Parts: sequence; structure tokens; C-alpha cells
Amino acid sequence: MTQQMGSQSLQFAEAPFILSSASVVGKKEGEGPLGKSFDMVCSSDKFGEDSWEESESTMQKEAAALAMGKASLKPEDIRYIFAGDLLGQTIATSFGLMNYEIPLFGLYGACSTCGEALSLGAMCVAAGYADHVLALTSSHFASAEKQFRFPVEYANQRPLSATWTVTGSGAFVLGNSGGKSKITGITTGVITDYGIRDSMNMGAAMAPAAAKLIVQNFKDFGRTPKDYDKIITGDLGYVGQEILWKLVKDEGYDISGNHMDCGIEIFDQKTQGTQSGGSGCGCSATTLSAHFLPQVEDGTLKRILFVPTGAMLSQVSFNEGQNVPGTAHGVIIEHACQKAEA
Amino acid sequence: MTQQMGSQSLQFAEAPFILSSASVVGKKEGEGPLGKSFDMVCSSDKFGEDSWEESESTMQKEAAALAMGKASLKPEDIRYIFAGDLLGQTIATSFGLMNYEIPLFGLYGACSTCGEALSLGAMCVAAGYADHVLALTSSHFASAEKQFRFPVEYANQRPLSATWTVTGSGAFVLGNSGGKSKITGITTGVITDYGIRDSMNMGAAMAPAAAKLIVQNFKDFGRTPKDYDKIITGDLGYVGQEILWKLVKDEGYDISGNHMDCGIEIFDQKTQGTQSGGSGCGCSATTLSAHFLPQVEDGTLKRILFVPTGAMLSQVSFNEGQNVPGTAHGVIIEHACQKAEA
Repeated sequence: MTQQMGSQSLQFAEAPFILSSASVVGKKEGEGPLGKSFDMVCSSDKFGEDSWEESESTMQKEAAALAMGKASLKPEDIRYIFAGDLLGQTIATSFGLMNYEIPLFGLYGACSTCGEALSLGAMCVAAGYADHVLALTSSHFASAEKQFRFPVEYANQRPLSATWTVTGSGAFVLGNSGGKSKITGITTGVITDYGIRDSMNMGAAMAPAAAKLIVQNFKDFGRTPKDYDKIITGDLGYVGQEILWKLVKDEGYDISGNHMDCGIEIFDQKTQGTQSGGSGCGCSATTLSAHFLPQVEDGTLKRILFVPTGAMLSQVSFNEGQNVPGTAHGVIIEHACQKAEA
Repeated sequence: MTQQMGSQSLQFAEAPFILSSASVVGKKEGEGPLGKSFDMVCSSDKFGEDSWEESESTMQKEAAALAMGKASLKPEDIRYIFAGDLLGQTIATSFGLMNYEIPLFGLYGACSTCGEALSLGAMCVAAGYADHVLALTSSHFASAEKQFRFPVEYANQRPLSATWTVTGSGAFVLGNSGGKSKITGITTGVITDYGIRDSMNMGAAMAPAAAKLIVQNFKDFGRTPKDYDKIITGDLGYVGQEILWKLVKDEGYDISGNHMDCGIEIFDQKTQGTQSGGSGCGCSATTLSAHFLPQVEDGTLKRILFVPTGAMLSQVSFNEGQNVPGTAHGVIIEHACQKAEA
């Protein structure tokens, strides 16, 4: 029986497996430090489409196809999709996944959506509601700039705290048997408002939510930082990382030794002009798929806490002078010992 | 054990109960045929706030408070919220529910979100992941007009196929024991594109998705229209209803005798100038809470199929010439025989 742990967590009795995953990214991501690890790098960010939104949809479609293919599954084998993106009314998802004709639960958790999708997908498989589900997210630099910062002011200087929205989509097939990694627990985030109002400093806006989530995870499971080989946030960047370490330390835990951030890993700050790091739903999803998950699958990492973070703003809320609250969703992923295949 | 039924449905072995619900609406809804049934009617649509988005957030906050109060529960008794709204980046939800500090799964299913929230909430309770969850949605006429049709062209004539976005929020507390109604099954929708491009005819855009969902529900559960006292769609309106009946009839089922639509019920077409009917996440949520659920609770209706419908468009996708695909989520709600209270 799956157990409710503490106030915000679940521990799965029969942990759902991650059967396969796939990452599809744009040109700049392909030129970054993880470039060779992604499944597909597009030489233009258009992915053969006419608009940025359609390009993002196409990335989702490709990521889903690749992930299903790797697991030797067809669309009709997938019972539910849990997916979302950053665009208003999540159109990248609706239009990208429509043709698969798979029952879809549309999600919005800003850049934390990958954690939300993996959480709900795992809950669904663990309860026996589905044999296979697909958890999927995306972001696209150009569609996000248009969504959040239109008109794009090319002449503007980007402050050092700014992040660069990753053009990428990551897809994960979850199932009840057979994978090399499994989701053993989740910690679900609350929205946390520290009064940040600077939309060019998303790291600072999300770090308090990440800190709260990580500390809550420790408490709910009776663990300390040492119980995780890595604690991996989504897109706090260099600026957010510093704040995170301090906030978690204030609660009595030191995660500076084993914390990593997908936004820091995906770009080379020195040569790529990405300032604080990468961001977007696609940042954590593609970095998990291409970089961290293989290390869990081969046993290099035994147990990680994956914590995608999200900033809950819109152009409207920002222009109306609202704060930028943050959220985070924690997913515990562990190496699964492989039984001999038949 | 909960059973996977057919290709898109679940039947809950231990059906989660709807312990309580609440509806909060604006002035026009209060003047409509269901006016006296809503829990709270605001004399202005501002709900004491400065912006339309904050007004919508406040509606959500009030609906949540009322629903929890009716179930004699406090925020700390609720393990998860499943919620969403129509605004870009679902800001009505993020800002509205933030202060409750309850783990939140943010959803986007356009006007079908009430069905999506009830489905995921029911799945969560039925699996033992939570003792109590809150499922909640909202829409607001003014924030929706600003989101989808800005600048609002007051001098425009509204075509007869246009719907009027309901200003309202409906909240539902689900739990594992004690309610007068229960969710016995769900049918989850796929996105369906019939090539509709008229954003002033949402009923036509959503009717095919509703038809597909309803027919799939019949097939998955081996049922016919007669097995439901009422089949209640969210916001197809008069125009969409006609299309729905025809499409379902083409599949061999006649639902004209027991179909109702929340968008038709909530306004008086003749006196309120609402053309085809009401629409929005708040339409189905408040009408279910105020009008239909009480009839299930007192046994007047033994079993209903509740099918909120959504149009998956954004201002961007529409302006880029995309079609308006639809979706729908089906929730089977049945009268629960009350045991004598201790």
C-alpha cells in the first residue's frame, strides 16, 4: 500500500518504472555541454514549422514518438498523457499531442511542470489506473520570449540574473514493470511567495519554493541530504542556487555538496551568453532525460531527488504589479536492479 | 480494485465521495434562473479587488473556503488541490489559492477543467493518496474577455452562436467517506479537431469532442443513454447542443431525451442577452454545485454523466490561423445511500 508521508509526500509501495525517455532540443542547446547526449538536435529552432508555437508543438510530437519508440510502444499502448508547457492555454501541448489521440490531462506548473507530470503519471501507474503513461513537457526560447516579453527588445541588455529559456522537449514513458529506474516517492509543492517582483530574476523567485520543498522532503521521509546522491533542481541557475543553499542551510541542512541544477548544466555560461543559466519546462525535462537519468539507469547514481521549479507569473500578473511566487515538485528517482530478461 | 474500462475509462472499486461543494458567482449569474441556488452572489463582479484577475482569484478563495467549511474541514485537512482556470499561466488559480499553502496540481483543460479536476481528484482519493482533496475551477467574464478578445470591442455585435463567459467559481471537496454523492467512474477525453475556425462558435468546436466522449463512455461501460438520468455537458449552449445530438445519433444513440447543458441552464437566453448560453470553467462548476449535485444528493437523480467541454485555443493560436480543437472530460456521479450518522 502506498503511504502518505508527512504532510506533502507519498512513498509508492510498488514503484512505477521509467521505461524510456527522450530529449529533443534546438541549436543552442545542441552546442552546449550536453549537446551530444540529446536524442535529437534541430539545426534550426523552427523544426520545419512556420511559427514558434508550431515548432514547439513539433518538438513535443517528436519527443513523444522517440520515447514511445524506445520503449517499443505505440500510441495505443499509452493510456494517459500528462503534459504541459509555458504558453498561454498550453497550446504547444494541445496542438502537439492531438494527433496521437491519447487521453490527455493538461497541466500547468510553469517550469515545474516536468515534476508535476512525473508525479501524476507515477501516481496513476502505481494505482493500477494505467499500464503505461507518458509524461511530457516543453519550452521554446522564441515562443516564450513572445509570450512573456513581447515585444522582444533585442537591444536590451540581459541582467546577470536573467536565464535563457531552453528550446527543448523531454518525454518519459512510465510503466509498471521493466525499466532501469523507478519513481519511489514524490513531494508535492505549495506555492510560495517571498515578495520577489523582478521578472529578470526567476532564480530568486523560485529558490524559496525549492528550499521549502527540499526541506519538506527531508522531513516527510526522515532523510538528510546524504540520503540522495544528487539533489537536482530545474532552473534556478547560478543566482538561484546561491539563495537555495542559504535557505536550506537556515533550516539546518547543507546541500552544497550534492546539489546540481539543470539550468547550470545545460549551457556553458562563459561561452554561450546565457547569464544565470537555462530555464523553462524543457530545461529540466531534457537535462533529466539526456544527462541524469542515464546515470541513474547505470547505477552511477543510486537515488536522486529531482526538483523542477516554477515561477507562477504571467505577462498580465507582472504588468499589474503582482509578485512572482514560485513552486516546485519533487520526484525521487532510484536505480532499479534489472532482473534477467526472458 | 479499480478497473480500467475500455480504452478511456476507469471504474472505481471504492468510489470517492463528494463531501461538499460551493458556488460563488457574479451579478449577472445571480440574476439568472439559478440565482437563488448559488452560495454567494457578488453585487459587483469586482469582489472587492482592483483588477479582474484578482477578482477571479478572490472568487476561487471564497469558493474553496465555503466548500471546506461545509465539510467542516480546515485547509490543513486537505492534502491536494486540483485546480485551474482559463487565464494565461492560470494566474487566477496560483494567486487565488496560494495562501492556503496546500500542495497544488495546476491544471489546464480550458472549460473542461472542472471535469479534469474532479477526475484527478477522484483518482487520488480512490488510490488512498489523500483523505481529502479539493477540486476547483473558475472563470470570469471580464478577465476572459481581456485574455481572449482584447481589446474588447464593445461596439461589436455578438453572433447568435457566441457564448457568455460565466463569472463564477465552483469548488468540491472529495473524500473517502461520508458524502451524499460519489464519483463511480471517469472517462478521460482526447483532443478532437473537426476543423472549426470560428472563435465565436465555441459550441461547434466542442460538440464533436463531447460526442466522442459520451459515445466512448457508453462503449467503455457497456451502457446506453437510459443508464443515466441526465447527461450534462458543460457549455455547448443551444448551438452546440444541436450538433451534439446529431453526432451522437450518427453513432446510434439518442440522448435528446436526457441531455442538459450547464450553459443553457445558467442564463435566460430571452432576457439576459447571452445568445447561445454560458461558458467558461466556472459555468459547469457552479451549475453542477448549485443545481445538479443537490438533485443527486437527494436522490432525484440516481446517476448522471457530467461532461465539461473545453475549446483548446489561445489568442495566439487563433491569430495564427489554427483550428479550434475541443476536448471533454466525463465524470460519473451517483447518489450515495446515507448510512445513519453516529
